[in-house]
Amino acid sequence: MPLKANDPSLTSWLPVPENSDFPIQNIPFGVFLTRDDIITIGTRIGDHAIDLGALHQLGYFRDIPLTDDIFLQDTLNDFISDGKKTWRLVRNRISELFQKNNQELQKNQEHQKIVLFTMDEIEMQLPVQIGDYTDFYSSKEHATNVGKMFRDPDNALLPNWLHLPVGYHGRSSTIIPSGTPVRRPNGQTLPKGADKPVFGPSRLLDFELEMAFITTDANALGEPIKIDEAEDYIFGLVLFNDWSARDLQKWEYVPLGPFLGKNFASSISPWIVTLDALEPFRVASPKQDPHPLPYLAQKGKKSFDIHLEVDIRTEDGSQTTLSRTNFKYMYWTMAQQLAHHTINGCKVNSGDMLGSGTISGPTPDSYGSMLELSWQGTKEIPLADGTTRKFLKDHDTVVMKGYCSRDGVRIGFGEISTKILPALEL
Amino acid sequence: MPLKANDPSLTSWLPVPENSDFPIQNIPFGVFLTRDDIITIGTRIGDHAIDLGALHQLGYFRDIPLTDDIFLQDTLNDFISDGKKTWRLVRNRISELFQKNNQELQKNQEHQKIVLFTMDEIEMQLPVQIGDYTDFYSSKEHATNVGKMFRDPDNALLPNWLHLPVGYHGRSSTIIPSGTPVRRPNGQTLPKGADKPVFGPSRLLDFELEMAFITTDANALGEPIKIDEAEDYIFGLVLFNDWSARDLQKWEYVPLGPFLGKNFASSISPWIVTLDALEPFRVASPKQDPHPLPYLAQKGKKSFDIHLEVDIRTEDGSQTTLSRTNFKYMYWTMAQQLAHHTINGCKVNSGDMLGSGTISGPTPDSYGSMLELSWQGTKEIPLADGTTRKFLKDHDTVVMKGYCSRDGVRIGFGEISTKILPALEL
Repeated sequence: MPLKANDPSLTSWLPVPENSDFPIQNIPFGVFLTRDDIITIGTRIGDHAIDLGALHQLGYFRDIPLTDDIFLQDTLNDFISDGKKTWRLVRNRISELFQKNNQELQKNQEHQKIVLFTMDEIEMQLPVQIGDYTDFYSSKEHATNVGKMFRDPDNALLPNWLHLPVGYHGRSSTIIPSGTPVRRPNGQTLPKGADKPVFGPSRLLDFELEMAFITTDANALGEPIKIDEAEDYIFGLVLFNDWSARDLQKWEYVPLGPFLGKNFASSISPWIVTLDALEPFRVASPKQDPHPLPYLAQKGKKSFDIHLEVDIRTEDGSQTTLSRTNFKYMYWTMAQQLAHHTINGCKVNSGDMLGSGTISGPTPDSYGSMLELSWQGTKEIPLADGTTRKFLKDHDTVVMKGYCSRDGVRIGFGEISTKILPALEL
Repeated sequence: MPLKANDPSLTSWLPVPENSDFPIQNIPFGVFLTRDDIITIGTRIGDHAIDLGALHQLGYFRDIPLTDDIFLQDTLNDFISDGKKTWRLVRNRISELFQKNNQELQKNQEHQKIVLFTMDEIEMQLPVQIGDYTDFYSSKEHATNVGKMFRDPDNALLPNWLHLPVGYHGRSSTIIPSGTPVRRPNGQTLPKGADKPVFGPSRLLDFELEMAFITTDANALGEPIKIDEAEDYIFGLVLFNDWSARDLQKWEYVPLGPFLGKNFASSISPWIVTLDALEPFRVASPKQDPHPLPYLAQKGKKSFDIHLEVDIRTEDGSQTTLSRTNFKYMYWTMAQQLAHHTINGCKVNSGDMLGSGTISGPTPDSYGSMLELSWQGTKEIPLADGTTRKFLKDHDTVVMKGYCSRDGVRIGFGEISTKILPALEL
């Protein structure tokens, strides 16, 4: 059954600029600081942020079973805990309230003054308190590229890769929203040919273009989530930049995986776009051969057609698109990732975040990291300002964007924009 | 300057059985559920739990700057955030209040009825909400044993091991207190000689004897913690059992490290023993060669002489000690782990947990895992009930204990006791 808030014919009484990521069919959820220094949960239509805490206090959600303070919080965790049925009721109600033909709020200037903000009046926050963050490695193209560079070009994929979505745990405390700058990390690296490490700023700072999904409370400790039910526990998606210091990572990562090469920062886009809003953009994921074990066997379209782009903005303000790729290239789907993650009984909570892994497409202009775009530093990437890059330089700003488009409706994620600051002198 | 609460001559008006882990010199912190179904923060002397929430309400901490509800919480996180100065004031005040010569509470039977519980009246909870959990790999003996078994016996340590404390991120959501049973996990494994994985219960379930420390808010994002200051941010220690499914781990762990082989459960002892209480038991850590880089160079005694033991209790109730080892064998210290963890600017928060890694000593009877004790399943370990083990069986109970002893004072951690339940049939 199609969701009524997704109807392409809907229009809002709030202005929505052409090519906006936030038409009335999107209705993402986020947390922001208002001009009065109050933190609230909100949504966005066009270039207006809408204070859901205030809307609820004014009675606009009176027909939905919600606690009084559900939107007057500094994270979405409790709302996400309320479950899919509640998310849908709230999204439908917002859709209804802002439709062109609805007069309730449209004619109430006083209420509008309380609940509406222009984007320059607010400051977006991290939308959830992330209890646990897991990162997968689910792009076959990315894993193949890395395998070719660092291991055997003829056997680029490790033996387990086609049988399970390889993943590992990341650091929650350093997940930051778009706009928060990232400092180049210091650490140990092993210079080429040396037998002792040296200390200093990372010289091979990189981004990883990913998407991540946010879960609700999904299971009891010890109980797996069935793959057919996995999507019921996915609240929505964000863009995700998994910052990586390749030289730190290379020296430290055997045998237990990435640590300081990753955990200095990870950036997300501040609006969580619900799985419901993405429903019209479902596509099949790549055919899986060998066929996965039964607990990972999925039916139907479990991927989404999401255009992704990563740009670099240099100090002169010029911007160069480095890569254009698509979420649909991912070999392992979110449902498979969640089913795999819990097959051993691992507990998943509201606000947990699961990253896709770097999203690389089949062609060199669709690779999701500098490591791949510069092929381990063997190629110079030309930028609009006349300079070139193999890896990122101080004061570069990395911008990631993503959107779906169909039947004249564009549902987008906004962007992650992050400036790189020089390393601390220690 | 010695801490007055550590004075070996102190005795309490509460009874302390011989060889108790909890004399008046300990004063650990924990969270428990009372007979009235109330969750509170407390401490323990002998076999009595003491309700600090109630003590505070009754005015016994009136001279210490504390918020009214600091102990009326279901985790210690906020108290830990108050910092070392406050922890000391509170520990000293508890020490004073329960000393034999102090009449304040000793003579007040009514107040005693409110604040004192016998251990069988309460149920210990997880003491902290663990935001991020990191596990290190800091025992040279353990890393050498694993390297000998799985890699090259002549080059057992990987090149980075002597230069940095190797670590990785673990799963916070599945950290459970002593007493919570653990279900044998299901998952993928690759049978010997096979080219395709099979699905089913892990056959190589193992414990890892570790200790873990709990931190307070330590730094801002992007700023490292200096090694000389690292211990100021350590609230205290617990025993830690890092459950491991060796067959799941072996198949999944390349190239990104352990995941489902570890994240089904990790058990901790419920009382956090403060670093202050462990002060009299400081010892030097093993000499480090090569000398570590300056950010990891430490002065003074940075390790602790903590006797550790792991027992297995079988269904007939008989108990066998499998290993006796000591925390002092750890090559990398807690201060080095924390300095390394943050050298890239990684943020550490109140309630984060950092595990030592398996603690193996120099002799085979001091190894900290079944993997090492059975030398990868090549040796049978005899148990008191007449059976043998290579790895753990369903219904086995693993018991870990730890204590320090000096000048007639024994400061202990209690125990972690965990029964293994059979795998779910899927």
